[in-house]
Amino acid sequence: MAKNIVNVYLTLTGLCVIGYQLTGMNTFDAINHAFTTLSTGGYSTSDGSMNHFSNSAHWVAIVFMFAGGLPFLLFVQALRKKEPTALFSDAQVRGFTLLVFSAGLAVALWLTWQLDYRFIDAFRVSLFNIISVVTTTGFGLEDFTAWGPFPTIIFAFIMLVGGCSGSTAGGVKIFRFQVAFALLRKQMMQLIHPSGVFIQRYNGRPVTDGIVRSVVAFALTFIITIVIVAAILGMMGLDAVTSITGAVTAVANVGPGMGEVIGPTGNFATLPDLAKWTLSFGMLMGRLEILTVLVVFFPAFWRN
Amino acid sequence: MAKNIVNVYLTLTGLCVIGYQLTGMNTFDAINHAFTTLSTGGYSTSDGSMNHFSNSAHWVAIVFMFAGGLPFLLFVQALRKKEPTALFSDAQVRGFTLLVFSAGLAVALWLTWQLDYRFIDAFRVSLFNIISVVTTTGFGLEDFTAWGPFPTIIFAFIMLVGGCSGSTAGGVKIFRFQVAFALLRKQMMQLIHPSGVFIQRYNGRPVTDGIVRSVVAFALTFIITIVIVAAILGMMGLDAVTSITGAVTAVANVGPGMGEVIGPTGNFATLPDLAKWTLSFGMLMGRLEILTVLVVFFPAFWRN
Repeated sequence: MAKNIVNVYLTLTGLCVIGYQLTGMNTFDAINHAFTTLSTGGYSTSDGSMNHFSNSAHWVAIVFMFAGGLPFLLFVQALRKKEPTALFSDAQVRGFTLLVFSAGLAVALWLTWQLDYRFIDAFRVSLFNIISVVTTTGFGLEDFTAWGPFPTIIFAFIMLVGGCSGSTAGGVKIFRFQVAFALLRKQMMQLIHPSGVFIQRYNGRPVTDGIVRSVVAFALTFIITIVIVAAILGMMGLDAVTSITGAVTAVANVGPGMGEVIGPTGNFATLPDLAKWTLSFGMLMGRLEILTVLVVFFPAFWRN
Repeated sequence: MAKNIVNVYLTLTGLCVIGYQLTGMNTFDAINHAFTTLSTGGYSTSDGSMNHFSNSAHWVAIVFMFAGGLPFLLFVQALRKKEPTALFSDAQVRGFTLLVFSAGLAVALWLTWQLDYRFIDAFRVSLFNIISVVTTTGFGLEDFTAWGPFPTIIFAFIMLVGGCSGSTAGGVKIFRFQVAFALLRKQMMQLIHPSGVFIQRYNGRPVTDGIVRSVVAFALTFIITIVIVAAILGMMGLDAVTSITGAVTAVANVGPGMGEVIGPTGNFATLPDLAKWTLSFGMLMGRLEILTVLVVFFPAFWRN
């Protein structure tokens, strides 16, 4: 199974290299960007990130960042069954697709309406940035924080959501929100029919106590980690927007924050060293899903 | 029991009137402020809110806003047992007290260190504003958003937490965070001892599935309501800080937001009418704890 996942990963990366080359990228750039697209890493050979490349390269990036945000195991299963639509039988993939395209469309309509973009350009830059943020890739294209308050709010929210569990993306992950939705649905039914018996299901399977507990524990530690990182950054005199979005972007493993310093057109170079250490710790916590790190600090962990 | 709660409420309001009078407030102001202190409502007879009154009036407000954030039922029980310390046998009260005083102390130390306040003044204004925000009273004293990034981050977080369940305060409520902590504790123990059997307890009682479900359902709808309200405000052209903190302050029933427009020294008068309707709906949702409102929109609710 691990071998199959590696094969899927290599094949997708190969296709991505070819895709980028077809858009006119040279081989060096195509290979580098393919590597950081599928891994949702987001490094670029150019300081201008994806602004440096053609519109068609943006579409290639959109396709493969999206693929990088999906659970790789499902690719293997879809290939085995020889039906690519099997991917969408997974609730997480459906939720992810719906979220990305509805947010992309909403922001694209805003750009068309408010900033006089042609719709096709608006949809390209909007979808590119939404997918880049939600899959925590972090490629930049234009400065989405300059698009006005509505897109800023959409991006601030979507930054937290993250990709699918089992993908290369970070963040809270779609499935945790879907588990919460399953509980909400049951809660509403229970309010309406107080003595009804409802089973909370996700992806066709019952949601057990253990799953719920892990979701709640993760959400709580995620919030607390962000608050602590933000408070430490604030104590160093960084402004509130830099501190809060810096903490979110680090713990959710996104890349750019918001505001003038660490926004999509800025970088983290000017922050004090201690801020970089704090953010590094935040990134590590986020990437390892926090509890794995916290448990190391429990004396009981070392006793056996 | 209802009669006892009313008695406690009236007695505390009476004590608060006397307290304010002793600080030099005239009877009219003392009665008005006592009414909005215990109800954690926060209206003032002065445009300057509490800035208009003496330092000792601030301490009276601190005491009675704090009392307004506690579960009133516990006052009745404490009176019956004739031991006031019985209040603190409740996990929620302990959590609330710890949160308020540690946040108040942290911000006071910041003010002493960074803005050269005398400690006693720093503690007064810090504790006043922390309690005003956490109990969702909304009285203003100085502009806490001008204290720098660290206090801003503390206030932004604490705005969401809210008072105790069973008090007059709004927000998410302390007990929901404590239930999440109980789950986190069990999750950590389970990670260390995978086959151990642990019971998640809160306030000495086991945390049932129903409690967990209601907490998750509330948290999810709380976040979604805030995102929707913020997105609508953003679409009307309000800046991101006003939109996001306006949505939070409305849904959490706090009062002031942050930023130049709706911060502690500003008000909501200049917002467009549609924004006021949206915020009003958000306040209603928050006050009724959301699910009670949502359930009305389910067809199944009307069928029986």
